[in-house]
Amino acid sequence: MKRLFTLVVILLMSEYVNANDGYKLWLQYFPFENKAVADYYRDYLENIHIVGISPTHEVIKNELGIAIKGFLGKDYQALTGKSVESALCIISKTDELPQEIKTAFAPNTVGLKDDGYLLKYHQGKMYIISNTNIGLLYGTFSFLKSIQTRAQLETMDILENPQIQRRLLNHWDNLNRTVERGYAGFSIWNWHRLPHHIDQQYIDYARANASIGINGTSITNVNANALVLTPEYLEKAAALADAFRPYGIKIYLTARFNAPMVLDNLPTADPLDPGVQKWWKDKTAEIYSYIPDFGGFLVKADSEGQPGPHNYGRTQADGANILADAVQPFGGIVMWRAFVYNEKTPTDRIKQAYDEFKPLDGEFRENVIIQVKNGPLDFQPREPFHPLFGAMPKTPIMMEFQITKEYLGQETHWVNLASMWEEVLQSDTYAKGKGSTVSKVIDGSLHGYKLTGMAGVANIGTDRNWTGHHTGQADWYAYGKLAWNPDTKIDKIAEDWLKMTFSTDPDFVGTIKGVMLKSHEILVNYMTPIGLHHIMARSHHWGPGPWVTGGSRDDWTATYYHKASKDSIGFDRTVTGSNALGQYAPEWKQILGDPDKISLDYLLWFHRVPWNKKLKTGNTLWHEMAIRYQKGVEGARWMQKKWEIQEGKIDTERFDHIRSFLNIQVREAEWWRDSCLLYFQQFSQMPLPEGVEKPKYDLNYYLNFKRNFVPGI
Amino acid sequence: MKRLFTLVVILLMSEYVNANDGYKLWLQYFPFENKAVADYYRDYLENIHIVGISPTHEVIKNELGIAIKGFLGKDYQALTGKSVESALCIISKTDELPQEIKTAFAPNTVGLKDDGYLLKYHQGKMYIISNTNIGLLYGTFSFLKSIQTRAQLETMDILENPQIQRRLLNHWDNLNRTVERGYAGFSIWNWHRLPHHIDQQYIDYARANASIGINGTSITNVNANALVLTPEYLEKAAALADAFRPYGIKIYLTARFNAPMVLDNLPTADPLDPGVQKWWKDKTAEIYSYIPDFGGFLVKADSEGQPGPHNYGRTQADGANILADAVQPFGGIVMWRAFVYNEKTPTDRIKQAYDEFKPLDGEFRENVIIQVKNGPLDFQPREPFHPLFGAMPKTPIMMEFQITKEYLGQETHWVNLASMWEEVLQSDTYAKGKGSTVSKVIDGSLHGYKLTGMAGVANIGTDRNWTGHHTGQADWYAYGKLAWNPDTKIDKIAEDWLKMTFSTDPDFVGTIKGVMLKSHEILVNYMTPIGLHHIMARSHHWGPGPWVTGGSRDDWTATYYHKASKDSIGFDRTVTGSNALGQYAPEWKQILGDPDKISLDYLLWFHRVPWNKKLKTGNTLWHEMAIRYQKGVEGARWMQKKWEIQEGKIDTERFDHIRSFLNIQVREAEWWRDSCLLYFQQFSQMPLPEGVEKPKYDLNYYLNFKRNFVPGI
Repeated sequence: MKRLFTLVVILLMSEYVNANDGYKLWLQYFPFENKAVADYYRDYLENIHIVGISPTHEVIKNELGIAIKGFLGKDYQALTGKSVESALCIISKTDELPQEIKTAFAPNTVGLKDDGYLLKYHQGKMYIISNTNIGLLYGTFSFLKSIQTRAQLETMDILENPQIQRRLLNHWDNLNRTVERGYAGFSIWNWHRLPHHIDQQYIDYARANASIGINGTSITNVNANALVLTPEYLEKAAALADAFRPYGIKIYLTARFNAPMVLDNLPTADPLDPGVQKWWKDKTAEIYSYIPDFGGFLVKADSEGQPGPHNYGRTQADGANILADAVQPFGGIVMWRAFVYNEKTPTDRIKQAYDEFKPLDGEFRENVIIQVKNGPLDFQPREPFHPLFGAMPKTPIMMEFQITKEYLGQETHWVNLASMWEEVLQSDTYAKGKGSTVSKVIDGSLHGYKLTGMAGVANIGTDRNWTGHHTGQADWYAYGKLAWNPDTKIDKIAEDWLKMTFSTDPDFVGTIKGVMLKSHEILVNYMTPIGLHHIMARSHHWGPGPWVTGGSRDDWTATYYHKASKDSIGFDRTVTGSNALGQYAPEWKQILGDPDKISLDYLLWFHRVPWNKKLKTGNTLWHEMAIRYQKGVEGARWMQKKWEIQEGKIDTERFDHIRSFLNIQVREAEWWRDSCLLYFQQFSQMPLPEGVEKPKYDLNYYLNFKRNFVPGI
Repeated sequence: MKRLFTLVVILLMSEYVNANDGYKLWLQYFPFENKAVADYYRDYLENIHIVGISPTHEVIKNELGIAIKGFLGKDYQALTGKSVESALCIISKTDELPQEIKTAFAPNTVGLKDDGYLLKYHQGKMYIISNTNIGLLYGTFSFLKSIQTRAQLETMDILENPQIQRRLLNHWDNLNRTVERGYAGFSIWNWHRLPHHIDQQYIDYARANASIGINGTSITNVNANALVLTPEYLEKAAALADAFRPYGIKIYLTARFNAPMVLDNLPTADPLDPGVQKWWKDKTAEIYSYIPDFGGFLVKADSEGQPGPHNYGRTQADGANILADAVQPFGGIVMWRAFVYNEKTPTDRIKQAYDEFKPLDGEFRENVIIQVKNGPLDFQPREPFHPLFGAMPKTPIMMEFQITKEYLGQETHWVNLASMWEEVLQSDTYAKGKGSTVSKVIDGSLHGYKLTGMAGVANIGTDRNWTGHHTGQADWYAYGKLAWNPDTKIDKIAEDWLKMTFSTDPDFVGTIKGVMLKSHEILVNYMTPIGLHHIMARSHHWGPGPWVTGGSRDDWTATYYHKASKDSIGFDRTVTGSNALGQYAPEWKQILGDPDKISLDYLLWFHRVPWNKKLKTGNTLWHEMAIRYQKGVEGARWMQKKWEIQEGKIDTERFDHIRSFLNIQVREAEWWRDSCLLYFQQFSQMPLPEGVEKPKYDLNYYLNFKRNFVPGI
């Protein structure tokens, strides 16, 4: 019976007629759904005049060709043949506009900054205007998005400036093509075929990133291999840089701190050693000889076995500055990660970055930016914002989000990461009083940073749909949008993405947007409710592991973080405990420090709470935990139900793929609930409340459940 | 200037409008090129009646739907709605035909065997007939191929029976998804997502294989991990088996010989130990409980570190028979590889398989088949056929071809492997006198084998086009065709493949077929002319390495094989040397044993020849070697030129991809020529003849050329 069912599923899946493997991402450019819509947009699409010549202009023409082929099913010829007079859509840099238009638009164009663009309807024509070539490309993508989302053109008046300068993807891709924390296959960088083969996928990668404003990519793992700094690999990286340049995307490389020793047998990598300083200067000059617009270095030092300035008794500023001095003459920057922690396990790991970096505020070179993870631990399903945000007014700080879902069920769980990111970005640091949101820290407006940035750890791999789960594409998309402007509304992001990627059908978009916006809360409930954290399985982090204990480092275990006993559970981070809370603003100390005032979402992150404590919901802690786990499972089932009723509204292939992954998600949500509740019940010794389903197996089953070759490590 | 060129290439490549990533293989089903052609086939395609119901019938309907959508651009509805009377194309098993048709066709259908099929035009209708469901699927693919290649239907009268029973792909895929000797990315088997997610790619894999008659697949590396025999992986393998079943494809697994020790701590894996025998019986029963139609085991034993019967002083027959006894009650078979060699380096490695297996002829169980590589060494660009073919009349022998190009330049070289395979298949073993070709050995007709088979080591990976090089698809295709019938004409195979994959344009097909058919000779010339062998780089086998010497085994070096000295070069395998020649029939000894009679293609394989010996071409050996290397390079350039003039005749994406790889091929052909000639010139001490280009670098450059992370190991 089961086999028969499988067979039916398979047969349904093989309806290749309705095939869409998702490779085109949000740049699907579906045919218009009816003649009226086609008629409305056709005139604009067929009468475009592009002013100027550059490789980026070629990219613009090419993209328009792809879009028109998709929308209207026909090849677009002679794009440059249209005169300004007859054109209905004009793509031009500000200084190349006809004088009268320039004058008419001056009140608008005066606001254009960097690669910002203006989309404006004026006297029967659409104008796409920017001060830069790349801005024109961004404007073109925005114009196409307007059509993809069926916007009205006659009322168009959009001025968009990037709020953050450096908008990067970080690929944790190794030179052997494995991807650390990668769940979508292997690295798309085929180093062996580079530099001589530039794959179409690299171009499509650049197109996708440019379409959402990403302008930089660090192509190698932060756990770095120094080989990437040798001519063998620089030649390859240069070929990628050449391919990405017309799309406005710069290449950055990860620098292994002891590269001078590894590559050239220097006796030390001490940042204050003149020989080492010279080595980095020479190496940097060599890199720029391959890649004239090389973006700079990304460095993970003194963390998880990576060498760093600590090895020589130097500070993080000493370490960052040696690289900063090397790239400075060429206009490069250094992104120095704050994810530093000692070899010895501390009493509270989450305090280290703040304790180490805050005293160094002002000691970094101007071209250094500190890259800080969203939360103080490590990309958990929910963390409070990192206390370094707002704490270093004299040192630029950039955000590091993890798009790949290391701790969030990995590729088979659907969770809209934008919800989590918005939570962080809109958190108030109170650094300069109320309204000092994290977004204002990283866009530079709060402290007047001259350098701003955001990094997203990529979820991209060789999977045919790039991201494993089709909905992982939404995270890549949303990341780009939030990197462009961290205050972008995430429901609009989700809506646009759905329309561009799947369908403009309002029922579909409305229902599935609802699913997306609730998905994060659902996942937190079935994984780590009420502030639980780091209770995933050891090493690969897939699936539950609240029982993980012992081993090389206590702060790599679950018991270090939940500290469950028969009385209580949770990590006391108030003044009576580690006082990590002390790293936050006074406004937060008041709220977070009081177990009765703190949001339940963070309760066990900051407090140690008796199992039988009554919470503000009226339930005991144990009761609340159990029903949240149950609620999480029910949420996953609800997502599944909402998805099922979309059958036929989108292509079969992607519908079935997501259906298949939702089945896995529900199964794993149950696994999380059952195993965590059974495990914690050993301590609480309390029965499962009514409404919470009985676990399928006993605790032993879960303790012994083991899978080999889990991806991503 | 170079950068500008790269840019232009990239921009051309990004013409996504003309995108075809090659995923559809030879099942492109392009729209008909004009109305006349469409009109001709439309009636047949729109009036199909399919008799019968089964999962395979669903597959047939589905495939017709895909094809019709492609050919005619429209959805095909209600395939089963046609009555027999109104239908113009009838797909039916023999015993379900209307009586009058059955009678009329009896003279034809009497010849149907196994999954064979009949395509016959009769009284205004096309009939696709078989005795089995899978035969109907094969017939349907054949019918579609006829349309893809624009065959006339009214004269159709094709009876096709498979000449070989077991037609397998062997995936050397590891459970961590790396692929040994894989050059097309990583394993398509996503073990982590199995059994719960059946990817569309698995279905498309099954479709592609069924379309060329492949009916089995061994999904794990012959360098085996015993884990695949545990429930964790059996459940996953079973899910694949379920997916493949409607396509007539059985799953086989690789068995690690010491699995009883690894998995269950048995003290021994001695095949004569009753405990071990019981273990294999129990394990096999367990496998069949997961996969009721499990095909059987593929075993690499006593070779390159794999455990085997030698470890216990037992014979290969002892080893094979213990597994054969275990699978016998379930109808399974054992494919036992003859690629056995001792831990100690012998005087001539290529003699070992013959020496070890020939004496065991007749000692294997009936359900054992010995899997023998095409040549006695290891998948070199050119080898004489393996002397075991024809040497074991009482033991079934199957062919193992390597579709992945371990020793043939790997993915970036275009070489039509069918040319090499035909050379082997049509070799005469003289086992029962003239005409005893290898093809007659393996189709069972020469010795009356009851079990027949062919295995091809897959070249499939996660690359978007499956095979790295688009033309690698031709090797997969040709392998299937030759496994179905080893006497199939390879020029017809190439022609069909080109038409189905790229275009029916006669200029394109004619020119590129010519390129394909010459490509093997060209590659042999620039890599290993005149019988040279195993002079590739160490370990990864990419690029030249005639200087490779020393290390753990002498027979893993180049110098062991070419033995160049200042007087001579070559391996004496005649009676004065290792007498490997003694393993061949007397007819061959005469020809091959005489350095003046032997084809120059095999000269240095069998003979040690002075550099200054005059060959039948009139050139000295050194001169001949040098001009063959030069000819190889010129051949690669000729391929490139022939390709360049196809621009515009096929889609841009694949055209550019192949162009890019041809550039690499020419570059590497020069690398081979220059480095090998410089190396051997040290010995010959003779100048390069006129017409041979001066090497670009000196020998030291080539000796020191090193690349990291070459794929496939």
